[in-house]
Amino acid sequence: MRLKLDSIRAAHERIRPYIHRTPVLTGSRLNQATGASLFFKCENFQKIGAFKARGATNAVFSLDDATSRRGVATHSSGNHGAAVARAAKLRGIPAHIVMPSNSAKVKIRAVESYGARVVFCEPTEQARETACADVIAQTDATLIHSFENPDVIAGQGTAVVELLEDVPDLGLVMCPVGGGGLLAGTALAAKSMRPNIKVIAAEPENADDAAQSFRAGRVIHTEKKFTIADGLRTNVGEPNFAIIRRYVDDIVTVSEDAIIFAMRMIWETMKIIVEPSAAVPYAAIQEGKIDVGGQRVGIILTGGNVDLEALPWNL
Amino acid sequence: MRLKLDSIRAAHERIRPYIHRTPVLTGSRLNQATGASLFFKCENFQKIGAFKARGATNAVFSLDDATSRRGVATHSSGNHGAAVARAAKLRGIPAHIVMPSNSAKVKIRAVESYGARVVFCEPTEQARETACADVIAQTDATLIHSFENPDVIAGQGTAVVELLEDVPDLGLVMCPVGGGGLLAGTALAAKSMRPNIKVIAAEPENADDAAQSFRAGRVIHTEKKFTIADGLRTNVGEPNFAIIRRYVDDIVTVSEDAIIFAMRMIWETMKIIVEPSAAVPYAAIQEGKIDVGGQRVGIILTGGNVDLEALPWNL
Repeated sequence: MRLKLDSIRAAHERIRPYIHRTPVLTGSRLNQATGASLFFKCENFQKIGAFKARGATNAVFSLDDATSRRGVATHSSGNHGAAVARAAKLRGIPAHIVMPSNSAKVKIRAVESYGARVVFCEPTEQARETACADVIAQTDATLIHSFENPDVIAGQGTAVVELLEDVPDLGLVMCPVGGGGLLAGTALAAKSMRPNIKVIAAEPENADDAAQSFRAGRVIHTEKKFTIADGLRTNVGEPNFAIIRRYVDDIVTVSEDAIIFAMRMIWETMKIIVEPSAAVPYAAIQEGKIDVGGQRVGIILTGGNVDLEALPWNL
Repeated sequence: MRLKLDSIRAAHERIRPYIHRTPVLTGSRLNQATGASLFFKCENFQKIGAFKARGATNAVFSLDDATSRRGVATHSSGNHGAAVARAAKLRGIPAHIVMPSNSAKVKIRAVESYGARVVFCEPTEQARETACADVIAQTDATLIHSFENPDVIAGQGTAVVELLEDVPDLGLVMCPVGGGGLLAGTALAAKSMRPNIKVIAAEPENADDAAQSFRAGRVIHTEKKFTIADGLRTNVGEPNFAIIRRYVDDIVTVSEDAIIFAMRMIWETMKIIVEPSAAVPYAAIQEGKIDVGGQRVGIILTGGNVDLEALPWNL
């Protein structure tokens, strides 16, 4: 994979008609609490409620016409499925979304609302991949992998391009890491635009494979414990790790309590709804895992899709 | 009271260093649901989490130096108390805030965090006024009434000035009405800036004194039933009604269920936190109390201070 800043700039032009240019918000109380100047890129306000709209839209609109007409397929229990379904609807092509049978009803309805076909499978990684392979064998649809696809990575990188356009003089950019689509795109774009900027990712302690991989210099798959940050349970991808290893400065980990506390702080002081995964970078700052004193820090708030009847502080 | 647009413009200059210029957000799903173009003025992102920062800051900074040094006093169980406390701290003068003894702890702490003195009283309107009069007799502080004070009204009117600067061609502006500080300031400013604009307020059915007063052409005080929109339980003030009667086109009422449904819709589709009172205008649209089809509608989202452990859909 030879992704470059040009790929990300091209992605930005391609997806611009279909995504929001999300606002960058500040929060004086969080600045006071951390001694830094924090700039939050609000991808919770993005289409489908998460940055995933960027990568999926870029991948779907990068297909040539003949290929696109055969449709697209993916497996996802979360935001990527909705993002692919929406992009396919915008392009007017079929979409097949493999979802675990125990997916939240609201997520199933979101995918169906875009006219996509939902294919249910057992809730294991193996079953998801098998079911998706079957769908592709039957339909000749193109797989849009949620983080390894280079067009997805390029699309995710467009968020930090906008952030750096709006706040040019950031010293540090932070995002969470799961499969590594956002982190790879963010790090590649940020370091290409600002060679001296730092890029630090944050990850739940209970799903710390990316941090372990970063220390080891090779991809390490780990058995996952439960984390409230459901968007970050995935192991980091090989193509993602190659980019991460080259461009990322550090990966830090945070406790579950810190994630919940940070999420609540963001809700209460900024009056915006972010999902647990989105709160992970701020949790790392708040837990003292990174020293940000006096710095200008950009943080990508990845999404805002939460079940309002099951908030973590009420459980 | 001879409030004019000039008073509101002067208020805007006076408070500008101390308040946020809040963003105007749109929500494509709410536009689809209503057939209108809705523009939400996000005073939930305002200092202290509500538009009340505008009026209180204007009133406190309008005092001459000698008067201001004797301090300010008010009675409030909600956002106005925090707003006066914050403004007094910014000006470096004492503040005495009378609060019902059953006020939420988080609201008491907010007031105390600005260094104000909290005076507790029995949770009745009569007890609040008596306690506040006692404080003023003892301290010679100046009363900053939460909605009847003309400088408060002028300050509240600055929100719609910003809204019309950002979205000049609105056909309709909406806000909720309780005591009428926001509505009077909004209507006066909007009609002065755009004589052809419509201004419509919304109110809970369970606290419909302003709607009744509007129909009758004189202030009618009603026995209040409970409403989830705790910011709107107050009866409309006489000076407020004089302005409202002159400039407001209509006042509509909404059910409790509609308020909760509207609040949840705003949270889920816009990913922002608004308090029940802030959801009342959108509830009126959603309940079909106003026909907004094809119109460009500005809605003032009044605040975002809610208890995250007691959300109405979980009760």
